[in-house]
Amino acid sequence: MSANNDSYVVGVDFGTLSGRAVVVRVSDGAEVGSAVHEYAHRVIEDRLPGTEVKLGPDWALQSPQDWREVLRTAVPEAVAVSGISPSQVIGIGTDFTACTVLPATADGTPLCEVDGLAGRPHAWPKLWKHHSAQPHADRINALAERRGESWLPRYGGKISSEWQFAKGLQVLEEDPEVYDLAERWIEAADWIIWQLTGVETRNTCTAGYKGIHQDGAYPSDDFLAELNPAFAGFTGKLGRELAPLGGLAGRLTAEAAEWTKLPEGIAIAVGNVDAHVTAAAADAVRPGQMVAIMGTSTCHVMSSEALAEVPGMCGVVRDGIVPGLWGYEAGQSGVGDIFGWFVDTCVPGSYEREAERLGRTVHEHLTELAAEQKVGEHGLVALDWHNGNRSVLVDHDLSAVIVGQTLATRPEHTYRALIEATAFGARMIVETFEDAGVRVEEFVAAGGLLKNRFLMQVYADVLGRPISVIGSDQGPALGSAIHAAVAAGAYPDIEQAAAAMGKRTEAAYVPDAGRADAYDRLYVEYCHLHDHFGRGEHPHGNDVLHRLRALRNEVTA
Amino acid sequence: MSANNDSYVVGVDFGTLSGRAVVVRVSDGAEVGSAVHEYAHRVIEDRLPGTEVKLGPDWALQSPQDWREVLRTAVPEAVAVSGISPSQVIGIGTDFTACTVLPATADGTPLCEVDGLAGRPHAWPKLWKHHSAQPHADRINALAERRGESWLPRYGGKISSEWQFAKGLQVLEEDPEVYDLAERWIEAADWIIWQLTGVETRNTCTAGYKGIHQDGAYPSDDFLAELNPAFAGFTGKLGRELAPLGGLAGRLTAEAAEWTKLPEGIAIAVGNVDAHVTAAAADAVRPGQMVAIMGTSTCHVMSSEALAEVPGMCGVVRDGIVPGLWGYEAGQSGVGDIFGWFVDTCVPGSYEREAERLGRTVHEHLTELAAEQKVGEHGLVALDWHNGNRSVLVDHDLSAVIVGQTLATRPEHTYRALIEATAFGARMIVETFEDAGVRVEEFVAAGGLLKNRFLMQVYADVLGRPISVIGSDQGPALGSAIHAAVAAGAYPDIEQAAAAMGKRTEAAYVPDAGRADAYDRLYVEYCHLHDHFGRGEHPHGNDVLHRLRALRNEVTA
Repeated sequence: MSANNDSYVVGVDFGTLSGRAVVVRVSDGAEVGSAVHEYAHRVIEDRLPGTEVKLGPDWALQSPQDWREVLRTAVPEAVAVSGISPSQVIGIGTDFTACTVLPATADGTPLCEVDGLAGRPHAWPKLWKHHSAQPHADRINALAERRGESWLPRYGGKISSEWQFAKGLQVLEEDPEVYDLAERWIEAADWIIWQLTGVETRNTCTAGYKGIHQDGAYPSDDFLAELNPAFAGFTGKLGRELAPLGGLAGRLTAEAAEWTKLPEGIAIAVGNVDAHVTAAAADAVRPGQMVAIMGTSTCHVMSSEALAEVPGMCGVVRDGIVPGLWGYEAGQSGVGDIFGWFVDTCVPGSYEREAERLGRTVHEHLTELAAEQKVGEHGLVALDWHNGNRSVLVDHDLSAVIVGQTLATRPEHTYRALIEATAFGARMIVETFEDAGVRVEEFVAAGGLLKNRFLMQVYADVLGRPISVIGSDQGPALGSAIHAAVAAGAYPDIEQAAAAMGKRTEAAYVPDAGRADAYDRLYVEYCHLHDHFGRGEHPHGNDVLHRLRALRNEVTA
Repeated sequence: MSANNDSYVVGVDFGTLSGRAVVVRVSDGAEVGSAVHEYAHRVIEDRLPGTEVKLGPDWALQSPQDWREVLRTAVPEAVAVSGISPSQVIGIGTDFTACTVLPATADGTPLCEVDGLAGRPHAWPKLWKHHSAQPHADRINALAERRGESWLPRYGGKISSEWQFAKGLQVLEEDPEVYDLAERWIEAADWIIWQLTGVETRNTCTAGYKGIHQDGAYPSDDFLAELNPAFAGFTGKLGRELAPLGGLAGRLTAEAAEWTKLPEGIAIAVGNVDAHVTAAAADAVRPGQMVAIMGTSTCHVMSSEALAEVPGMCGVVRDGIVPGLWGYEAGQSGVGDIFGWFVDTCVPGSYEREAERLGRTVHEHLTELAAEQKVGEHGLVALDWHNGNRSVLVDHDLSAVIVGQTLATRPEHTYRALIEATAFGARMIVETFEDAGVRVEEFVAAGGLLKNRFLMQVYADVLGRPISVIGSDQGPALGSAIHAAVAAGAYPDIEQAAAAMGKRTEAAYVPDAGRADAYDRLYVEYCHLHDHFGRGEHPHGNDVLHRLRALRNEVTA
């Protein structure tokens, strides 16, 4: 399958439910083998493993043991499947969900693995979607706004409950003993590198996007003390020296070589985040190339030479995607999840049976029917806020709105309106960037939704611009492999490695002028509804979504 | 089954798809037998019977032959089923859908039965839901508003495309020859009385609500001529003398006695309309008793001593429900239809299977699940405009809005929100009447939705007042029988007949104070959305529903 003289790298993508290893040829990015390991503990949401300790609402933890198992099983399996010799592998790169963060001892031992602490919820790694630190995030935001902290606008004016500081403050205030025992507070993206190299590093990406590291510094002790006097020393648990993306974090230890069955001493790339590393896989790391990783939700990453304050972005970080540029991140908190919800709860049995008769999934069936409609024929417009709104409103308490249903509305009408709503949401993000002076030169799509060609065409028509698509369905793992090639010295930088190993089809979808014009009319309606319901506190806005959420919380408390 | 000395009356209800006869004891309103005849031609929407003549969009016709068949089959069958002797029957009363109207010769022959005219669409009776005269209605309204016609406010500021003048103008302009041949233009409610008695009469109810007869006169020839010079003589085809409700229209002819197998010469009551006659069946004809006939749509009728201009009402007519009072009518254009649409197109197969396993209909299953929720738990509020809005906005081009859906929204949440939306719509009508100075003393429910006890409780909680319910599921036919008893002289007036023969349980549903308070909060949200989307042309309103409808019509034209 491979020429014997070729060298290879392994990219490992640590997801929410599983880890995936892909073996990639250094010369051209060919993916020659892959394997997946499903986490035994999946997401820990109800009770701690092996205990009767129950978790509260909105908790989500993971087990470090599951991550090590990916190294032990998926990596050697992928190499075996590829047919290459392990000796041909010159490096490993990884990416992780983020902010997934854990307390550890000074030697990197997760606190949940320290004797006597397995029954303490706060000793475990908090998964990105652990959301019970919202009150702590609210306090951080309120104080930062009051004090006019210079870093706040770098995060669209709001930091997330998912991030390092909110989760850390929660540990301090809910289990101060565990907080004190945590000598290190470390992203899983960096912890896994520690396991492979034996050396602690901190990458610029998570430090910037999740750790509020801006202009060379974390938030001040003064700020932290005002939140809680005991929180003042928190940044001492973080990393002081940041390692550049694509850099060499260290070399594979003997122990990790034993796990992975790869040669001791090969290069290990600095840790990274799944979305951000996908830009390299799509060969889209140059300024103005916005990469949308479209799945259950959508993450947008883009580099730029300019620093700007884009309203509602998730963050802008120097060297955040590639060294030397400002890396921007934005996101839509519900995309594929919305279509999944619709198919699961809003489509009648007759459609399920008809889809089965035609040998299609319900998604495929609805897509076929939706594709037959003209733009505007369904008479609908929707707001895609079933899971809140990440960008540009940064408000998880928003919910969806659909306007225009009649007794003649069929499921395929609403399905199409929901697809369009997510496309309008994407356009809102693109236009917000451009309005802030950050030019979007190319829109590049990656992720699972690529397989729906109708949806992609709707996006092109709504955005009114061509859409490029990634040439791999293993974007994060391929991107990690590209970082590994750089770390191993096979390429001088990420840009050149991505050019050789990344895969992208330019203008795979081109807008139809007539449909684009019609969508311009619907987009105006979307914008009106967006501001009316999304900026409810403004004059002429309607804050009904927050009041409905408050009433719901009140009666279900 | 009946004492031999008792006397009986027959009520006949002519509906959209069938006619129903009920035999009722005069002394106490006991319903002793009934029978239904399904119309052979049902609603004629595609092509004229026995021809290749196609009808246009929004056409809806009926066949007079079907109506006669109800007299020939359902009436004798109901009497046979009851076990009484036909000689015990002292009168017949009828009610009809309205405005269902037909062109006839001077002797009452429908034009569609005149030689050579069966192939002319405009020669046939136009069913109430024939909607292709909308452009004619628009012109009538625009002209009436411009001229400040005094009758316009009596119809909430707008007359309907369903009514006599719009439909008549359509005949004139689309088939002037048929228009000229139509010596009479008559409501089916009056035409059926002509068949039974051999005498033409016109009832105050349809003349007022559907024929724009106000303060003793129809719209002026001057007004009609300005619409179209040839329309000036139109009112000559209508009735000059109006007959009071409950009055004696005439006596059963020998021919009609042969059809019905009832004694020649018995009393025939003046014609009436299905909704209005139900007030008598519920013994709710006194001032301030609002009767809501809740089915696929809801019609509200109420008498009052006061004349007021209630915004968005369908009409106010002197003697329109009972002689001596002002009769008010309002309506919600979609109620049960909305729940039916939801069950047919928005509920997944898993719910269908679970309902079947539990031996419930899907409606029953969703109702059970909806009933478990606390008020506001679903986080939703909806506008019930899936079929437009009759009262108080009088706008058939509106469509529905639903606000607050999330990935956790289940079908039973939305189902409950839709039930609540229709209850909010009912409250809007009640409050609009009261704001206009027309006091609603009692809310009385009738119709098919009564069987959903949860829904009725929601209405009581939302309205914040007790709800009385009719004691019959044959409201219109029972009401017609009550009118027959008055016409036959068994009672001096409708009030006294209704008191003896009508059936109503007072305060069958009583609001729960806690739920009513919570619904007050949701109703405020409904009102905001109602005005924002329903009065879109106003400042701070959003006319998006009309723009979406216009785009839909444009692309599907």
